[in-house]
Amino acid sequence: MQSLRATRRPAATRTRERILDASLAMFNAFGEPNVSTNHIADETGISPGNLYYHFRSKDDIVEQLFASYEARIDEALLLPTTRAPNLEDLWLQLHLLFEAIGSYRFLHRDLVDILTRNRRVRIRFARILDRASISATSLLRALVETGVLHAREEDLPPLVENAIALVTFWVGYDTVRSGHFNGHANDPLLGMRRVIALLAPFLDATARAHFERLAAAYGA
Amino acid sequence: MQSLRATRRPAATRTRERILDASLAMFNAFGEPNVSTNHIADETGISPGNLYYHFRSKDDIVEQLFASYEARIDEALLLPTTRAPNLEDLWLQLHLLFEAIGSYRFLHRDLVDILTRNRRVRIRFARILDRASISATSLLRALVETGVLHAREEDLPPLVENAIALVTFWVGYDTVRSGHFNGHANDPLLGMRRVIALLAPFLDATARAHFERLAAAYGA
Repeated sequence: MQSLRATRRPAATRTRERILDASLAMFNAFGEPNVSTNHIADETGISPGNLYYHFRSKDDIVEQLFASYEARIDEALLLPTTRAPNLEDLWLQLHLLFEAIGSYRFLHRDLVDILTRNRRVRIRFARILDRASISATSLLRALVETGVLHAREEDLPPLVENAIALVTFWVGYDTVRSGHFNGHANDPLLGMRRVIALLAPFLDATARAHFERLAAAYGA
Repeated sequence: MQSLRATRRPAATRTRERILDASLAMFNAFGEPNVSTNHIADETGISPGNLYYHFRSKDDIVEQLFASYEARIDEALLLPTTRAPNLEDLWLQLHLLFEAIGSYRFLHRDLVDILTRNRRVRIRFARILDRASISATSLLRALVETGVLHAREEDLPPLVENAIALVTFWVGYDTVRSGHFNGHANDPLLGMRRVIALLAPFLDATARAHFERLAAAYGA
């Protein structure tokens, strides 16, 4: 059922959103390099000419989708400002990150190719990684200060780098490992397990048990 | 200067090898999706028709290059059979792996896309990961048994999975992080550092110092 707001929206805006929705679904299902603007127009039920009235090129569509992805990632990277972050905050951050990545998995599947072809997206993605690095370092440092994570200050940079590499290439790794795209990219918990395994040697038994309880509560 | 052996080789074999060499160099420099058979024919100084006499398609070239890559990886995965493997064996294995990956970095740069398009390469790559998993588990288990690695048996599977993910996507991570392809993909030590950071919390001070000496000896 369409909402009142949707029915009042101008037709051009609705078409534009339908193009973006169809593009995201097709990119995720088949991989961005395998979907042309003609496929997208077909799927949206419009002519290729109409599609080009809304978007200059497929790259233009990718950039619009990237903006929504970036907003989701930035929301996931937010840390509490009025208290020290704790294990639940780490859990939540990872959960939101892997959910956002699952929703826009086409981007992570062909990341290098997409970034190579689109300079603006490349620059914005590099900045996201910088922000992720700052956020993850703050979070881990707070966990060290509150005695939850037993790591030295010099352990943090390589730990953060490996965490970022594992998160960024989780979709790629899962695809290669499971032998098919969309293997488990929609299950945030499987991606989270990779990062939690990375942190595990720095956690004491209490913190590990805490993670196990969170995993059980989330149905893992 | 051409070797005596090369000059005696039949012309067709020499052309075939020149096509493969040119393809590898161009794939590595520009990314496989961005290089066509026409580009390769141009670079080899032959006609497109002559190229198709030697290879049915670009995928056929990719498969031939993949066979050489697979042989290099399998060589890197060999472990000593007459004695327990030690830290130097781990170092050597990682060094050979990252050298092979650097030589065929085009494959790792667009891994998901290449594997999706080529079923035979996909199956063979999945088997390489299985063999890598077995080899890495044997090696780490031996290090645990000789008291070098302080890990429990249940720590090994997630450790091996994360190591394989970091090695497989090292080229992708480096490209995204450095903002340009061929960033540091040719420097095995930078990739090795990612895996050594992963193992570090399980190593005692002596083993860590040992790795530092190895890194210094290799000019890191």
